[in-house]
Amino acid sequence: MRSLCVDLGQRSYPIHTGTGILADPSLFAPALSKGPVAVVTDSNVAPLYLETLQKTLKALDKPSLTIILPAGEESKSLDNIQEIAGRLLSAGYGRDCTLCALGGGVVGDITGFAAAVYQRGVAYIQVPTTLLAMVDSSVGGKTGVNHPLGKNMIGAFYQPQAVIADTDTLDSLPEREFRSGLAEVIKYGLINDQGFFSWLEDHMDAVLAREPDALTKVIRHSCKDKADIVARDELEGGLRAILNLGHTFGHAIEAATGYGQYLHGEAVAIGMVMAADLSRRLDLIRESEQDRIYALVKATGLPTLAPALPVADYLGFMRVDKKAEEGRVRFILLRGIGSAVITGDVPPAAVTQTLQAFMEHGHA
Amino acid sequence: MRSLCVDLGQRSYPIHTGTGILADPSLFAPALSKGPVAVVTDSNVAPLYLETLQKTLKALDKPSLTIILPAGEESKSLDNIQEIAGRLLSAGYGRDCTLCALGGGVVGDITGFAAAVYQRGVAYIQVPTTLLAMVDSSVGGKTGVNHPLGKNMIGAFYQPQAVIADTDTLDSLPEREFRSGLAEVIKYGLINDQGFFSWLEDHMDAVLAREPDALTKVIRHSCKDKADIVARDELEGGLRAILNLGHTFGHAIEAATGYGQYLHGEAVAIGMVMAADLSRRLDLIRESEQDRIYALVKATGLPTLAPALPVADYLGFMRVDKKAEEGRVRFILLRGIGSAVITGDVPPAAVTQTLQAFMEHGHA
Repeated sequence: MRSLCVDLGQRSYPIHTGTGILADPSLFAPALSKGPVAVVTDSNVAPLYLETLQKTLKALDKPSLTIILPAGEESKSLDNIQEIAGRLLSAGYGRDCTLCALGGGVVGDITGFAAAVYQRGVAYIQVPTTLLAMVDSSVGGKTGVNHPLGKNMIGAFYQPQAVIADTDTLDSLPEREFRSGLAEVIKYGLINDQGFFSWLEDHMDAVLAREPDALTKVIRHSCKDKADIVARDELEGGLRAILNLGHTFGHAIEAATGYGQYLHGEAVAIGMVMAADLSRRLDLIRESEQDRIYALVKATGLPTLAPALPVADYLGFMRVDKKAEEGRVRFILLRGIGSAVITGDVPPAAVTQTLQAFMEHGHA
Repeated sequence: MRSLCVDLGQRSYPIHTGTGILADPSLFAPALSKGPVAVVTDSNVAPLYLETLQKTLKALDKPSLTIILPAGEESKSLDNIQEIAGRLLSAGYGRDCTLCALGGGVVGDITGFAAAVYQRGVAYIQVPTTLLAMVDSSVGGKTGVNHPLGKNMIGAFYQPQAVIADTDTLDSLPEREFRSGLAEVIKYGLINDQGFFSWLEDHMDAVLAREPDALTKVIRHSCKDKADIVARDELEGGLRAILNLGHTFGHAIEAATGYGQYLHGEAVAIGMVMAADLSRRLDLIRESEQDRIYALVKATGLPTLAPALPVADYLGFMRVDKKAEEGRVRFILLRGIGSAVITGDVPPAAVTQTLQAFMEHGHA
């Protein structure tokens, strides 16, 4: 088991990674408030890991309530915040309770937000069970739910007391979801960590075979990269936006296809390939660097082409993205592998060329 | 016009009090973000002051959207958060927008919470139009909505950019609501400010006549007392709880009577009289002090007796109060006029005696 710390002053918290740690009460104990615990999970994860977690909490003499949401993005709603709060109120839970998010990004996001707003804030622990949640959504304190008019439009920045990532839970992860999570892993190399990117180029086979040492390295390194960036910019004032590499294009792809056709990581993978292409068009990176990025995304088994749709559709969805400022789209671009730059100043023609170049049947 | 500052480091903000300041663009300008503005108000307040505020914003060249909620506590719901977010999203409002809460406590609480969670947080300004909102709810950053199972059970601590309290708006306030607001004013004297309490004893006639100088003094002094306490304990870790003097009994009275029978301040007034009685029973204050407190509440025209209900009913509602810890009720008591103490250690028999002593037809 290995641990690292997200350094946010009074809101600092540890990230524990390792095998079998879901069953280790000593990791949970310091993160729990004085009162009772509520485990929030979903219908996919509950049959697999809920019993283990409940045993761990029982060993700590913690009464615990279980709230099982239907699996899927639709559960990330304000209605379910009302539902979770209702369950907690009915059980008489006060401000000294702790919520425990057992699951992937959806469970983590809604549980974190429920914790942020229940009685104006209670403690919570992230127990991610997908690669994406381990390397991305469980770290950094972004919580929230969807609005019918936009994803993640209602939420809060709210940090957990601890992240406890048991790599054993990845055994049950479907291959496509696993690869999707690797898109965010590649992202960390691209924006912040040239050495890690090179390591991924050399070890992608071992990672895809889910060799325990390779997995631990991947999760640990990704969490550390993200934690460092979050520590420097907790509330997304500036720097933190580099974590959105590939996400401006990616969100547009998800939105244009109505969500569900592409997994988030798949859309981000295409988005990163597009961001690399746009960076090269603006002479920020060399063609050889673009080729390496394309090759690694390919080697990971991730898609590199967006569906053929009118360019105007994609542009429209980019403009309503949360990160747009005064209607202006901000792009995260690369000025080399391991170095990202944020800019609102990109010629529209170049964006169009990039979109056309990476559309199915649309290689211009 | 007079201003004071709530000192919360990076989250500090000014409170402006005076006549006619709703029409002063220079007070709004520094509190607005770069983007557009949305004014949230209710059906009672809109016909009275919306036009003035819109003119002020127009003078600043700020496009502004208006969201008018039905007047009343029922509007403080998660459904209305979804509604407000929907209106903002439809209008293309991004993170750089500013919400403006024009109204009483209900409008302030829901608008502040909407600002806290819309796109994970946007700026907001409190423009209170009731005495209660001016001296209490608009200061301190407590925001939230009600849950069917409990008031204010979903919310956040989230500070505004400014509080702009135009005392002219009090002209339209019904007498009963005005007196209800004075309960919180008396509270500040009791918990923190013996001199202010004495001043209120001497000047209650002028205050009740709404003499402008007396009003300004009352609002300014109350805001300053609250701001000082909030600055010392933003997230209600301990000290801030003294602001709840009278509220443990008061919430129980509101809940036991199904809300609506008593205004919040009326219930708090009875609660303060009860807290004084309980303090005297525990030998924390003298009988002469208790008498002064009772006399001032009476002189303000506020009620001092709770409806005759089984004591067990009141005790039950006290136990589910948000401030209860591990099922234990915490009381805010007085150890003199101007000095409050927080304790979880009160003999149940004394609480019962106090409840019986201040129930209608129940003077034991």
